[in-house]
Amino acid sequence: MLTERAAALDAADPLAHVRSRFLLPEGVVYLDGNSLGALPAAVPAVVEDAVHRQWGTDLIRSWNANGWWEAPARTGDAVGRLIGAAPGQVVAGDSTSVQLFNTLLAAARLRPGRRLLLTDPDHFPTDQYIADSVGRLLGLDVRRVPAREAAAVLAAEGADVAVAAYAPVDYRTGELYDMAALTAAAHAAGALAHWDLCHAAGALPVELDAIGADFAVGCGYKYLSGGPGAPAFAYVAARHQDGFDQPLTGWHGHAAPFAMSGTYAPGPGVARARIGTPALLSLLALEAALTAFDGVDMAEVRRKSLSLTGFFQECADSLLDSLGFTPATPRDPARRGSQAALRHPEAYPLVAALTARGVIGDMRAPDLLRFGFNALYVTHADVLRAVEELRDIAVSGAHRAPEFRERPTVT
Amino acid sequence: MLTERAAALDAADPLAHVRSRFLLPEGVVYLDGNSLGALPAAVPAVVEDAVHRQWGTDLIRSWNANGWWEAPARTGDAVGRLIGAAPGQVVAGDSTSVQLFNTLLAAARLRPGRRLLLTDPDHFPTDQYIADSVGRLLGLDVRRVPAREAAAVLAAEGADVAVAAYAPVDYRTGELYDMAALTAAAHAAGALAHWDLCHAAGALPVELDAIGADFAVGCGYKYLSGGPGAPAFAYVAARHQDGFDQPLTGWHGHAAPFAMSGTYAPGPGVARARIGTPALLSLLALEAALTAFDGVDMAEVRRKSLSLTGFFQECADSLLDSLGFTPATPRDPARRGSQAALRHPEAYPLVAALTARGVIGDMRAPDLLRFGFNALYVTHADVLRAVEELRDIAVSGAHRAPEFRERPTVT
Repeated sequence: MLTERAAALDAADPLAHVRSRFLLPEGVVYLDGNSLGALPAAVPAVVEDAVHRQWGTDLIRSWNANGWWEAPARTGDAVGRLIGAAPGQVVAGDSTSVQLFNTLLAAARLRPGRRLLLTDPDHFPTDQYIADSVGRLLGLDVRRVPAREAAAVLAAEGADVAVAAYAPVDYRTGELYDMAALTAAAHAAGALAHWDLCHAAGALPVELDAIGADFAVGCGYKYLSGGPGAPAFAYVAARHQDGFDQPLTGWHGHAAPFAMSGTYAPGPGVARARIGTPALLSLLALEAALTAFDGVDMAEVRRKSLSLTGFFQECADSLLDSLGFTPATPRDPARRGSQAALRHPEAYPLVAALTARGVIGDMRAPDLLRFGFNALYVTHADVLRAVEELRDIAVSGAHRAPEFRERPTVT
Repeated sequence: MLTERAAALDAADPLAHVRSRFLLPEGVVYLDGNSLGALPAAVPAVVEDAVHRQWGTDLIRSWNANGWWEAPARTGDAVGRLIGAAPGQVVAGDSTSVQLFNTLLAAARLRPGRRLLLTDPDHFPTDQYIADSVGRLLGLDVRRVPAREAAAVLAAEGADVAVAAYAPVDYRTGELYDMAALTAAAHAAGALAHWDLCHAAGALPVELDAIGADFAVGCGYKYLSGGPGAPAFAYVAARHQDGFDQPLTGWHGHAAPFAMSGTYAPGPGVARARIGTPALLSLLALEAALTAFDGVDMAEVRRKSLSLTGFFQECADSLLDSLGFTPATPRDPARRGSQAALRHPEAYPLVAALTARGVIGDMRAPDLLRFGFNALYVTHADVLRAVEELRDIAVSGAHRAPEFRERPTVT
């Protein structure tokens, strides 16, 4: 019956045609697009052109002839279309860690005299580390307040808060928070809202402009499928651009980069959020990858994503009962991002055994099995196969084989 | 006679065979490898493999299966071989701007209580901007002292200096400074020496360990030919690694990145200088590019480089006399990097007209024509052709044609 349900859901999927925009390996069910997105079909030719013609033949002339100089803004605007940002507010480049540091420090500088940074104790580690680093440099206290309690703290002590730095989606459980409400709570306290969109951009509708977000960053290699270590992006709301005072004052953010002045003068608009020379092969790959979203409505992505995660939960309820799994992702669709996680004490070997069977998810220590659902290329049939394989492994104990014992460097 | 000289010098060139390790466009003389190195022949296949097999097929498994996690250290060590750094002291990743900020701030933290940062008023702009940014964050004064006067200032006021941040090669004139002497002067004052190797790495022998340098950064896209916006690198001398306290605390620098702890604990050795997820397509391209140096002795590179720049000066003396050019690069080989610059009031149109004839150099405002000589692929015949074309343009006034008037975005 689940087989029929999957087939019916896939048959009715208005995004079914988008799957062919990705080059997925034969026989693989890929549920780790929240860690590294699959390869978009548009990418290889663009990268080959970037290497052979742009770099090899046009050489330095490509900065003008092939639009390299404009690539961070152009790609930023393409990301902006997916996160509700009007043109001229997003630049692409650098890593998420770097963009976090640069924008969070600049945000805090916009609220001098306030002594607190709020961040989430369940935030991705880098976000917490960077908040601590920014706090140390600016003499601010970093307080870790869970997302669901942040509005209350802002209401009570908000006059001390410079910036509230949160993510809409918990990177482990996939729990979704209310960005609009937390942004409004920050503003009501006179604080700024800084968002990490790593697990949201390309996964679900984000409306930065509409909710009045101040700053945001996100990575290019998860749901945007920009490739391994794809450049990140930074959103600086138009109203903050004139006052944006970043610590990473590389020459690309200068008002007149080629005047080679020894004194920094920030550029106009979001151009001032540029830092140094971007990694162009990676950046052009990301730009090409974003064309996979051409004509795709993020509301449609959200509907399918919820259908996939909901179907996963339904399959897990039926097939994984009494096998030691505990669901870790909210049932309520309004509180669910685009992933589903299960807890199990043998999380690592289970994921390793699944991978060996061509079903790729990942795990997060100590006990979380994590499955990401990119609505652009995952099917309901994929979901069912993943849960069936997981059941078969758990029932048979196949994951206790010696080859699944040793954890590699990256898990 | 210059033609015969060029032919004889090229015939006797022990590095002549290395030119075939680069894919140079037919008919082009490329003297801008100090801005963007030419495409190494080893790169395209590596990038194609990285896109199709590693990303497309192996997907997230590549972090282990294809050594992605180790790429920053592996590539760092490969750069280290060219700059006199024993293994375990260099990591590759991020942009030069980011690496400058991260290492300069960490360096200054190692000298608490000292209130001065020294940097060069002729330093590349980003170096000056970043020094100012670090100074502002740590409450230090930034003093701009020309490289040739730095030792005297260190002798007189060195007790106040935390870090002296310099480059061995002036990015405009190509003037070469004595790294060992300036490092020793910094140390004699109890200060640290921070080096920007952008115009030195791969261009001439650098002996970071031997001279006792403390920190260094450099870019991957000039003489290392790693591609547009190729990742930069950072050198942290082994003796400073335990105390290295960086502001860009991304999770890749953590002691146990996959433990996902909310508290930063720096990793062992140079691994703690890692920041976030590296741009892997660009990083793997850089790693492949570095194989162009396999079996190449940097002393040989230096000999040829000086022969090329010396021959350029000789050709310019003969052919550009009375045409309004003023040499800007020292005659003394001991004071010359791997480039040669000329001043001319019509620098931009002259360079544009040269480019139109297939001779690619660049200019730096307001009046500098800049030619870089990568000894791995530039020939003496290239040098002569460049100067001959420049003479022909200057004599004929071809550069005054309308198409060379308008300066594009990037010049």
